[in-house]
Amino acid sequence: MGFEEMWAALLPVGRDEATGGYHRFAWTPHELACRAWFLDEARRRDLVVEHDANGNMFAWWLPADGSRGDGVLTGSHLDSVPGGGAFDGPLGIVSAFAAIDRLRERGAAPARPIGVAAFAEEEGARFGVACLGSRLLTGAIDPARARALTDGDGHTFAEVLHNAGLDPDAIGPDEDLLGRIGCFVELHVEQGRALWSDGRGAPVGVASAIVPHGRWRFDFRGEGDHAGTTALPDRRDPMLPFAGMVLAAREAAERNGAVATVGKVRVVPGGVNAIASSVTAWLDARGPEDEAVRRTVAEVDEAARVAARPHRVSVDLAEESYTEIVDFNLALRDRIAATLGGPPVLPTGAGHDAGVLSARVPTAMLFVRNPTGVSHAPAESAEPADCLAGVDALTAVLDDLARG
Amino acid sequence: MGFEEMWAALLPVGRDEATGGYHRFAWTPHELACRAWFLDEARRRDLVVEHDANGNMFAWWLPADGSRGDGVLTGSHLDSVPGGGAFDGPLGIVSAFAAIDRLRERGAAPARPIGVAAFAEEEGARFGVACLGSRLLTGAIDPARARALTDGDGHTFAEVLHNAGLDPDAIGPDEDLLGRIGCFVELHVEQGRALWSDGRGAPVGVASAIVPHGRWRFDFRGEGDHAGTTALPDRRDPMLPFAGMVLAAREAAERNGAVATVGKVRVVPGGVNAIASSVTAWLDARGPEDEAVRRTVAEVDEAARVAARPHRVSVDLAEESYTEIVDFNLALRDRIAATLGGPPVLPTGAGHDAGVLSARVPTAMLFVRNPTGVSHAPAESAEPADCLAGVDALTAVLDDLARG
Repeated sequence: MGFEEMWAALLPVGRDEATGGYHRFAWTPHELACRAWFLDEARRRDLVVEHDANGNMFAWWLPADGSRGDGVLTGSHLDSVPGGGAFDGPLGIVSAFAAIDRLRERGAAPARPIGVAAFAEEEGARFGVACLGSRLLTGAIDPARARALTDGDGHTFAEVLHNAGLDPDAIGPDEDLLGRIGCFVELHVEQGRALWSDGRGAPVGVASAIVPHGRWRFDFRGEGDHAGTTALPDRRDPMLPFAGMVLAAREAAERNGAVATVGKVRVVPGGVNAIASSVTAWLDARGPEDEAVRRTVAEVDEAARVAARPHRVSVDLAEESYTEIVDFNLALRDRIAATLGGPPVLPTGAGHDAGVLSARVPTAMLFVRNPTGVSHAPAESAEPADCLAGVDALTAVLDDLARG
Repeated sequence: MGFEEMWAALLPVGRDEATGGYHRFAWTPHELACRAWFLDEARRRDLVVEHDANGNMFAWWLPADGSRGDGVLTGSHLDSVPGGGAFDGPLGIVSAFAAIDRLRERGAAPARPIGVAAFAEEEGARFGVACLGSRLLTGAIDPARARALTDGDGHTFAEVLHNAGLDPDAIGPDEDLLGRIGCFVELHVEQGRALWSDGRGAPVGVASAIVPHGRWRFDFRGEGDHAGTTALPDRRDPMLPFAGMVLAAREAAERNGAVATVGKVRVVPGGVNAIASSVTAWLDARGPEDEAVRRTVAEVDEAARVAARPHRVSVDLAEESYTEIVDFNLALRDRIAATLGGPPVLPTGAGHDAGVLSARVPTAMLFVRNPTGVSHAPAESAEPADCLAGVDALTAVLDDLARG
């Protein structure tokens, strides 16, 4: 199975034919189908499959001497945001298998293990915390907190793990596994158009850093009532301060040179003819440095409270996750840049498992350019030739790193 | 089964134990359980059950001569809004059965049929059009349009009817049935506190009119993209003009002496880290006269378009339903008021099957007072003694009307 065949096999899984968007949420049938595909590809290549306790999967090509330490890990994730694109996540995994095939075809005999990772719940689309699998692996989230996370149907992460045959009490950092990862290189579709705008026509770039980013939840609580019979002054309608908060987020982001987005909202009870009793909204905010993000969120919070007061609506703000700036390992980046002959080096506004792993192991990222620049939506794209250039680059990088 | 026993039997069906709110949507298991309860109560009383082609149910107590014409119809509906209260709908049906029991206990021998109606999809919570059953019965909605209505899961009304054992091609006006309804009297919990504020301490009032009301759908279409990597000026985020529209609705309602509510919104794709590609929001607007409602909606529409333009978001407005002012039959109201010894007479801002029926048959409504004034929410309430006073009033009204 070459890159194209693998890509074609995975392409229909979880795609909404009407919109072209993907719905592959952790441990739902579509994502389970992607996991089955991963295990099939690993088996086809006689890779050694390793399941950790956190729902992450690894497929290892061990060196001839069978040693398992100091591995060169690549891969990405299989899950998607709601209505996401085809490339975010799977491109890194399909490219990893394809790169292993190339190395084998040319008779490479790596001195270090080469592993393909599929990290669980990278998008946080089901349980609300991005990079949940890699966070658990590295100890970046308390296992008790993770167990209690709930999905939109009220199922806890613990329940879902249990139903998937995993032991919820066993989740958490895995020092043995981490100790066997010498470095991690994640290939990913670019989320933006920096490579297209670069002018050098390079299809592949190397990451410098992940900018600070986080998610915050705003709970607006008012009082449900009848939309027809409740006079305006008697209302405690949480939809109104929520609307004010949405507009304030844009203004605060502009003021602070950050970006802020409200892309998810839950209205209870959600009836056309009922004043809402509560509105929950999620704020995604990112910026070039921590201070810009922190200030943006504080200003949105203040604006929400000011907007809520005249409506006698309460506002609660909870930080669901926050990641400070991640500067990728400089030595690893330089070595990769040398291997690839000086590719463009660029930061990214998107979070990744690589960002989480970088707290524990030398980590780097490769980006494949994206003609639309769009991500997390069906228009997310990469040219077939650029995908193959990505495989070429990853092959060269793995070959170099795995020599020892 | 007295009022209290019937009420207690129905009370747990479809109730969310956490919130106390009801979820009884047309032809879903909870509403089907309510329908089964209705048929049991009809059978227990040897009433003649009639199913029309539109999913409405009728239970008739025929006079001794077996005549079926010129019936006195009462009853209401069994379905609820999401998270609705216990009283809106069921109170009218339970009271109707209880009133029949009282009439029989006192040996009444009505000269006209007395019927208990359970109208389908009164709230429009599943298919978006309120009073769907009574609209179909009276010809107030095109059957082809009704068949094509879809619920939140994409199922059409035609499919749901078919699965319920009904023929979707048979829906529409039923002149034979309408011709047998001499008048309709719907008892309902008050949605507001006018009876409590009235000062006379009357637990039951009579309706004068239903104020004009309608529902409009706003579709905001932008472009989905990554929340972290898309610069603010490049965004086409439909959430922003949606927020502007919510605030404009409140302002326009205040200006025009109307009420306007946004209680339901659908965000696509709905991911925390994804700029929305589209936002659909429903506007409920009502006012003392048509012009106030029309002007409110036009002003909201204009504000939404102004807010959308700088974000390159498109706005589509569709009227889902609109009901002009309903003045209930004056002769019927006067006769009922005389029977009840001059009860308070009050208008309502809520739509009802009685409003739809009134286009074809003399129609009246009785309201039972509500200490919270809240409706469409768990706090919707009526004192047990006031419910029994409602049964007393309905018994007297049916007794008087059915004498002929």
